Amino acid sequence: MRNEELKPGDVVLLYSPDRKTYLVSLAEGGKLGTHAGEIRHADVLGKHYGEIVRSSTGQPFVILDPTLEDRMMKVRRLTQIIYPKDAGLILVKTGVQSGMRVIECGVGSGAATICLATAVAPTGRVYAYDREERFLEVARANVERAGLAHLVEFKVRDVAEGFDEEAVDVVLLDLPSPWEGVPAARRALRGGGRLASISPTFNQVERMVATLEAEGFVMIETVEVLLRHLLVRVGKTRPFERMIGHTGFLTFARRALQPVEPSGDAEPEIEIP
Amino acid sequence: MRNEELKPGDVVLLYSPDRKTYLVSLAEGGKLGTHAGEIRHADVLGKHYGEIVRSSTGQPFVILDPTLEDRMMKVRRLTQIIYPKDAGLILVKTGVQSGMRVIECGVGSGAATICLATAVAPTGRVYAYDREERFLEVARANVERAGLAHLVEFKVRDVAEGFDEEAVDVVLLDLPSPWEGVPAARRALRGGGRLASISPTFNQVERMVATLEAEGFVMIETVEVLLRHLLVRVGKTRPFERMIGHTGFLTFARRALQPVEPSGDAEPEIEIP
Amino acid sequence: MRNEELKPGDVVLLYSPDRKTYLVSLAEGGKLGTHAGEIRHADVLGKHYGEIVRSSTGQPFVILDPTLEDRMMKVRRLTQIIYPKDAGLILVKTGVQSGMRVIECGVGSGAATICLATAVAPTGRVYAYDREERFLEVARANVERAGLAHLVEFKVRDVAEGFDEEAVDVVLLDLPSPWEGVPAARRALRGGGRLASISPTFNQVERMVATLEAEGFVMIETVEVLLRHLLVRVGKTRPFERMIGHTGFLTFARRALQPVEPSGDAEPEIEIP
Amino acid sequence: MRNEELKPGDVVLLYSPDRKTYLVSLAEGGKLGTHAGEIRHADVLGKHYGEIVRSSTGQPFVILDPTLEDRMMKVRRLTQIIYPKDAGLILVKTGVQSGMRVIECGVGSGAATICLATAVAPTGRVYAYDREERFLEVARANVERAGLAHLVEFKVRDVAEGFDEEAVDVVLLDLPSPWEGVPAARRALRGGGRLASISPTFNQVERMVATLEAEGFVMIETVEVLLRHLLVRVGKTRPFERMIGHTGFLTFARRALQPVEPSGDAEPEIEIP
Repeated sequence: MRNEELKPGDVVLLYSPDRKTYLVSLAEGGKLGTHAGEIRHADVLGKHYGEIVRSSTGQPFVILDPTLEDRMMKVRRLTQIIYPKDAGLILVKTGVQSGMRVIECGVGSGAATICLATAVAPTGRVYAYDREERFLEVARANVERAGLAHLVEFKVRDVAEGFDEEAVDVVLLDLPSPWEGVPAARRALRGGGRLASISPTFNQVERMVATLEAEGFVMIETVEVLLRHLLVRVGKTRPFERMIGHTGFLTFARRALQPVEPSGDAEPEIEIP
Repeated sequence: MRNEELKPGDVVLLYSPDRKTYLVSLAEGGKLGTHAGEIRHADVLGKHYGEIVRSSTGQPFVILDPTLEDRMMKVRRLTQIIYPKDAGLILVKTGVQSGMRVIECGVGSGAATICLATAVAPTGRVYAYDREERFLEVARANVERAGLAHLVEFKVRDVAEGFDEEAVDVVLLDLPSPWEGVPAARRALRGGGRLASISPTFNQVERMVATLEAEGFVMIETVEVLLRHLLVRVGKTRPFERMIGHTGFLTFARRALQPVEPSGDAEPEIEIP
Repeated sequence: MRNEELKPGDVVLLYSPDRKTYLVSLAEGGKLGTHAGEIRHADVLGKHYGEIVRSSTGQPFVILDPTLEDRMMKVRRLTQIIYPKDAGLILVKTGVQSGMRVIECGVGSGAATICLATAVAPTGRVYAYDREERFLEVARANVERAGLAHLVEFKVRDVAEGFDEEAVDVVLLDLPSPWEGVPAARRALRGGGRLASISPTFNQVERMVATLEAEGFVMIETVEVLLRHLLVRVGKTRPFERMIGHTGFLTFARRALQPVEPSGDAEPEIEIP
Repeated sequence: MRNEELKPGDVVLLYSPDRKTYLVSLAEGGKLGTHAGEIRHADVLGKHYGEIVRSSTGQPFVILDPTLEDRMMKVRRLTQIIYPKDAGLILVKTGVQSGMRVIECGVGSGAATICLATAVAPTGRVYAYDREERFLEVARANVERAGLAHLVEFKVRDVAEGFDEEAVDVVLLDLPSPWEGVPAARRALRGGGRLASISPTFNQVERMVATLEAEGFVMIETVEVLLRHLLVRVGKTRPFERMIGHTGFLTFARRALQPVEPSGDAEPEIEIP
């Protein structure tokens, strides 16, 4: 990426050393109120990523370009979002990559949409379904703000009505009853296509996995990701005292075109590094 | 992705319902020995992803296209690899994406190289450094097998000698003494560029974070990712009895072009979903 | 405890610096085969705890008196045992202490029996029920070997038939269907008496909690304990690469004598240290 | 325990179904202000554990006898306390039991003192050292309130000055520099006696373990305990969203009377249930 002079329309993350961050779309004449005074967009325009701008109180802020995580965490939220720790595993386990066609059902506030659109860019496509028009509107605005609108098609639709696409590479379900989306996902996925689902409760997971088995999916696997922060200071390093104990369980599966008998009773072998 | 007839040169993951998998590059006349008999490549050629092939003993195998995780876990290993759970977080936290230029130092067996190359495709580039020529040879073979060689430049070099590139977007350090790579990383990164590092011990993390602070990096953060598998069976769902307790700690930071005073003493706020 | 000369009948834990341990009841003329040669009991008799004995190959072993954990982990096992990490929480959460009367149902190999008997000594009593006579026989032998037989009464009985005791302080259920033991536990417990239950699956926990609510128990709480080992070496300290990912979920409750409406929908507040 | 009529001086835990609890020592004419109105002690006196009392607003409270955990969590706090999850493991790993003599150094608010005194009752003894008189005063008040004062001897003393006792069974160190207590602990412990230490940082653990090795302790082991709560509701059971991510690392060791060479480089085998 060229590190050119910042101009109106560019999106920046402003970071102050007390670990507060602000995501801003620059505009002529714009102003940002912070916990440590006001920042005039004019003072940022013309600078480069990595440089410092000072607020009205003299507090330094580093001008950064937002990462995928920044964009996901800074969405305007109407709903719970899929967290970066979970989104990262979804990327690696489903193998979403540049050029792929992906369905997301249960778009919520669009955090995962941003993740998927980033991964399929510049030539892939995300089909983003939600049955709640008001969620889609928020998600659309969040995706636009992330500069990814050209990669996403939004559709108001209940999962029971199925998807329009065929032979997609990946389907992500974030639904209260994800098993209701399995038949539609199966029809929409190409052979070998990957399904991911996220749910907070064991009960959802149990019913989801049973449905996936019944619908002939294979390599079904359920995991959870725990993220632990360390407070690193020379001579007194320790884990943080608080952590998030749970977001959701992630279930992954792949579409087989012909039936095979599941034999999932054994604990899969875990490879030890 | 078109789900076309499989032809020589295509790479498939063969999955048997007892959860064993094999990664194979198809060749005319090829044969694969498995735990459940032999599979002739000829029986796979002409089929599609998602279809089934039977081994000499009649065992069904589903023909799948490998995910990013499959490709990472199936590398030939001379060294410990960066695990998918950690690689996923690196993707989201650094925001590696299509078109970016990325340096990896300490390539090892190339699992992370495969991850980064997949993320920057089709137009980005990975500069893969290692001081051990024998590691680079293995990594190169693994990257070629993954069909990603056109995206990666391998260089035998000790980190103390620095990197050739400038203004790269991301640097990933997987070194026994990652702090030795920080000055070179600082010089190679554009403003706002992101650094990631993985280390098994607290001591490495402590020295690394101190070095990053001294070199003017910001948004320094250290985490670990714990992955827990669930054994999901209707009416008797529970976590697995065994898990991987530790791979490494991940440190992330971003390059500021001007100095700011770190003020890292407080525990960052953790957002609760 | 007086550290007197060891005599026949004393139980010792022999520890070699490569972290192997042996639990032995000393006898005149006894011999112990180890991974590092033979140890003659005669060489231990007359020594004190903390001293060293050498095997036939010259390997030093430290003579120790077994802790509660040693005794629990060294039981002869016919079944899964309750692990020390879980037993410790049971002690603190139920408040089992000297002089209490405790029922254990589902004795298995007797590891928890040893824990409970140790906690109620010297004047309390453990009533240990199991419907499998062969388990009780093993448990009895393990309890005797731990020198605690005078504190425990063993009874072959299915939980459906209820318990003989009244007004006991604590009931511990380790049953495949622990909810079947709840009515009997309610009848046997004094007002304010505490119930603990351990089960591997979510499904068991869910049914157990629903039954406890229906039977008027209060302060119902379910937790799991994860134990992580650190490999501590100067300059290279890290968590172990392997850990136990799951043993069981622990449910705790207390007996109310009059009904109150449960209002368990909120997440209890977790106190942060 | 007899479940007799409650009388002045008895200590009760009052529990309301919205999961609030109050620890109260009953007195003629006493009153307790709660979040849901006032409770007159007179309304509790004469009742039994397990019965219900109503507040001035009609809210039911169950009258319970406090468990060890209740007593520990309800201490008046000047300092961080040792948490029940950690205390439970300390009990099992050190094997503190009825009749033992135990030294605690770094008493803080006395939560662990309450735990140890409960475990050694009715005939053992806890020697509780702290160099801060104001902490000892609070701890003494907390121990008295728990009815355990007859089991504990408090001493204002810096650990550098050593302990008065000899041949004790267990030493618990909760100090900012626990290694400073190791020589005194070694001198005070009988052969085979057990040492436990709790510290928040890796750095403390590393120095502590090195000191224990240098002072000839054996079976040195460092662990951490993670406690995870489940929200159990029929059909929607899941882990809590928040959890405590860290309290402290626990180090355990035993006193050998003669030197053996440590050989701690291997990861100890972890037994899988």
